[in-house]
Amino acid sequence: MDKHYYPYEDFLTDTKILVEKIDWKFDSIIAIARGGLSLAQLLGEYYNIREVYSINTIGYEDTAKLESVEVFNIPELKYANTVLIVDDIIDSGDTLVKVLQVLRQAYPNVRFRTAALFYKKSAKIAPNWYVQEADKWIEFFWTVDMKRNI
Amino acid sequence: MDKHYYPYEDFLTDTKILVEKIDWKFDSIIAIARGGLSLAQLLGEYYNIREVYSINTIGYEDTAKLESVEVFNIPELKYANTVLIVDDIIDSGDTLVKVLQVLRQAYPNVRFRTAALFYKKSAKIAPNWYVQEADKWIEFFWTVDMKRNI
Repeated sequence: MDKHYYPYEDFLTDTKILVEKIDWKFDSIIAIARGGLSLAQLLGEYYNIREVYSINTIGYEDTAKLESVEVFNIPELKYANTVLIVDDIIDSGDTLVKVLQVLRQAYPNVRFRTAALFYKKSAKIAPNWYVQEADKWIEFFWTVDMKRNI
Repeated sequence: MDKHYYPYEDFLTDTKILVEKIDWKFDSIIAIARGGLSLAQLLGEYYNIREVYSINTIGYEDTAKLESVEVFNIPELKYANTVLIVDDIIDSGDTLVKVLQVLRQAYPNVRFRTAALFYKKSAKIAPNWYVQEADKWIEFFWTVDMKRNI
């Protein structure tokens, strides 16, 4: 698959586009780690939201070649009513489906919506807001810049 | 106090310097949110560590004008032996002192060390590794870039 380098400048541009699209008020942000961490930090600063949390997932291939996802480090949402869940890319959608399921079960009275920079049309779930459709392998700056000589 | 804009390029350069300094092997990373989130993401990718967590703090001024810090969302460290705690800047040191205290109490068998990009000499604790001493107010890119027209 073609690789597409995604530098910080594009990330910044797209995050600005993302906040233009998000027509919803929320009081907390949950980053799906690791992919959503930098995005969550910028959004937390932009919206002046200090309630920025993260959640972890591990994907397993089970015997039937279906991916199963374990979710852990579910943040404590004592005062949250409306939470934006963010990730860099919605790929298969397995992670986001499971994260939503676990969070909705843990917090039935909290409303969750989702945002991502990239979304693959083949994913089983679409985020509420996204910026670009991904048809290539995205090399995010946080993955490659530390290994590049620039 | 003078303000010093700290762009992504400087962050990348300093993070490269930081990993040169860190002469320790660790299996997990905890970001102090929000400040340490982007740094934790880059380090997690660089070291190929998927166990990247976050922890939250709230600072209160109590009546005696001493800052007291509440720590919450303590990550589950089932398999961790050695954990690097990261933040953008060690300012007063109150947050780091309290985070270390809470984590060491929760996980007496886990070894914790600390890293930051900036450190103020007046802080009550120094991180194990840092890159720059801070004598100005640092305007990190994640705080200001979303509001700048670039």
